[in-house]
Amino acid sequence: ALAAPALAQANPEVRWRFQSSFPRNLDVLFGTAERIASRVAALTDNRFRISVFPAGEIVPGLQVLDAVQAGTIEAGHTASYWYIGKEPGFAFFTCMPFGLNTRQLTAWLRHGGGNQLGDQLFADYSIQAFPAGDTGAQMGGWFRNEIRSQQDVQGLKFRISGLAGQVFQRMGAAPTLIAPADIYPALERGTIDATEFTGPHDDERLGFFRVARFYYAPGWFEPAARLHMMTNKRAYDALPDAYKAAIQVACAEADSEMTSRYDHLNPIALRRLVAAGAQLRFFPREMMQAAWTANEALMADLAGQNPRFRALWDSYRPYRNELFQWFRVSENSYDNFAFPAAAAAAR
Amino acid sequence: ALAAPALAQANPEVRWRFQSSFPRNLDVLFGTAERIASRVAALTDNRFRISVFPAGEIVPGLQVLDAVQAGTIEAGHTASYWYIGKEPGFAFFTCMPFGLNTRQLTAWLRHGGGNQLGDQLFADYSIQAFPAGDTGAQMGGWFRNEIRSQQDVQGLKFRISGLAGQVFQRMGAAPTLIAPADIYPALERGTIDATEFTGPHDDERLGFFRVARFYYAPGWFEPAARLHMMTNKRAYDALPDAYKAAIQVACAEADSEMTSRYDHLNPIALRRLVAAGAQLRFFPREMMQAAWTANEALMADLAGQNPRFRALWDSYRPYRNELFQWFRVSENSYDNFAFPAAAAAAR
Repeated sequence: ALAAPALAQANPEVRWRFQSSFPRNLDVLFGTAERIASRVAALTDNRFRISVFPAGEIVPGLQVLDAVQAGTIEAGHTASYWYIGKEPGFAFFTCMPFGLNTRQLTAWLRHGGGNQLGDQLFADYSIQAFPAGDTGAQMGGWFRNEIRSQQDVQGLKFRISGLAGQVFQRMGAAPTLIAPADIYPALERGTIDATEFTGPHDDERLGFFRVARFYYAPGWFEPAARLHMMTNKRAYDALPDAYKAAIQVACAEADSEMTSRYDHLNPIALRRLVAAGAQLRFFPREMMQAAWTANEALMADLAGQNPRFRALWDSYRPYRNELFQWFRVSENSYDNFAFPAAAAAAR
Repeated sequence: ALAAPALAQANPEVRWRFQSSFPRNLDVLFGTAERIASRVAALTDNRFRISVFPAGEIVPGLQVLDAVQAGTIEAGHTASYWYIGKEPGFAFFTCMPFGLNTRQLTAWLRHGGGNQLGDQLFADYSIQAFPAGDTGAQMGGWFRNEIRSQQDVQGLKFRISGLAGQVFQRMGAAPTLIAPADIYPALERGTIDATEFTGPHDDERLGFFRVARFYYAPGWFEPAARLHMMTNKRAYDALPDAYKAAIQVACAEADSEMTSRYDHLNPIALRRLVAAGAQLRFFPREMMQAAWTANEALMADLAGQNPRFRALWDSYRPYRNELFQWFRVSENSYDNFAFPAAAAAAR
């Protein structure tokens, strides 16, 4: 193929506004949007400039999708599962309880049909979205009291995002969704008994360990948590091809980069939290089994009520089961030998 | 900041030759180099064109580093651990026996100091290298006979890459390195007793199941296997900034993209292999323990002999131990519940 002639109009000056759903102090989350903008600038000789705004600067953090849809901002960095009130299928693109882990979710999105199904869903909101960052498997959250059995979940006032709130409701808990800035006072006053957020690095910044010392694993309700760069479809479609490619590739880079930053920062943050008095605990197996059963029933109900949810679940569920089986053979059999072996050798 | 003026010389026509260490029929491995080239072309309006060649078309597959160093080709896609004869420290940038898994290796390279140490090492060979693709945890390989105990490793003629060959030697095996095209006939004739390659998708294409039916996991000697795009440093340094950014970001995208393709393709390939008669086995725990001990002794010896290896091991080992501990809490505790739970539910 011959090179395209270097037309002046092939590299127009473009400026976009890109709002995050996160505040600046959550540096990895907010920083992911900044890194995408900076990479796009570098790739376009600074001709495509994307200004990044923190939550609330243009619209509230949980209204980013609406603002992108309306064209108030050209793009937003947010989690699709905050919009399950519009459409429960949005959950699949962030995380599912007992769902795919981070690497597996990437495979489903890119190669298992996930992104195509996502494109159809987002298009109904005039949005073209790109996966752009994942936290890795999250922690199960901060609890004022220990969870010794499934009984301790009864009536538990738990701040939690996504479909998992409905799982906890079926288990007898009283789930609630509170904006990040309001969680700490609610936990301190006892308005809530427990909260999940992400993992040690972010959780430490939000200070939960000072008012709820039991720190639970695993975060079976968020075994991955994928963010998206949501772009207004008309704005995106109007871009020159090279600028579209710049967004695509910057998001693909950010997708693994956010995870690797958390993987780097979480271990040392967990050490500091434990040194400051956090008590590490694991959810009782009985409670996890009850959660599994409640989740299966919830999925069946949602699939029965909503054809789009059913189409997504019919794609996601067999893919999950197939990848879980393969990962048991390879990754998991390695991890289960090597992780304890290194701990024993380090003693 | 103001946009830079669109100077004609800011977007020169550049052509590079980029040779893979892999043949075309290993589609995921070879295809990764093609995807990097295609992304760079899209990002530069086709002005920076990189032609991709399969193994052997310009130089033999295992001489890619030498050819990049000499400037015979501007870039190569290869595995640094094939060059441990020059410098044992090259192993760290592909994989270490009982080392970091894929996600953890990304964290060490990007944030734990790995890439900086790599830059120093590669610079001695006039190379600027970028991580560009990973297989995920590999399988342990194909064996003509079962490995029931550590005794069965004695005298075993095993085709294997990297430092793991030296671990097997210390365990009493007779390791050997054979180019991919020659493995099948060697295994068929019984010149070798066993071979590892990567995982189900590639291994199926190479046909090993027809002549060695026991397929072992886990590949403790390759818990990740990172490839690099190695560029000739003078050629790279001469590129405009936007072209450098295009290479960086295309490699970062390819880095996770190769893994996600394998994660998608390996499960179904394993099913086909088992249907065709492959017998899935797990290495005996006793043999894994002996391998762990042999590996620790090998690391100590290499660190004692080679200051650069020592510096790398002193960075890598504590990082591995720290990340292993954190991953036990989060990822591993999730996987160990969810993977079997899904299998039980699917029955």
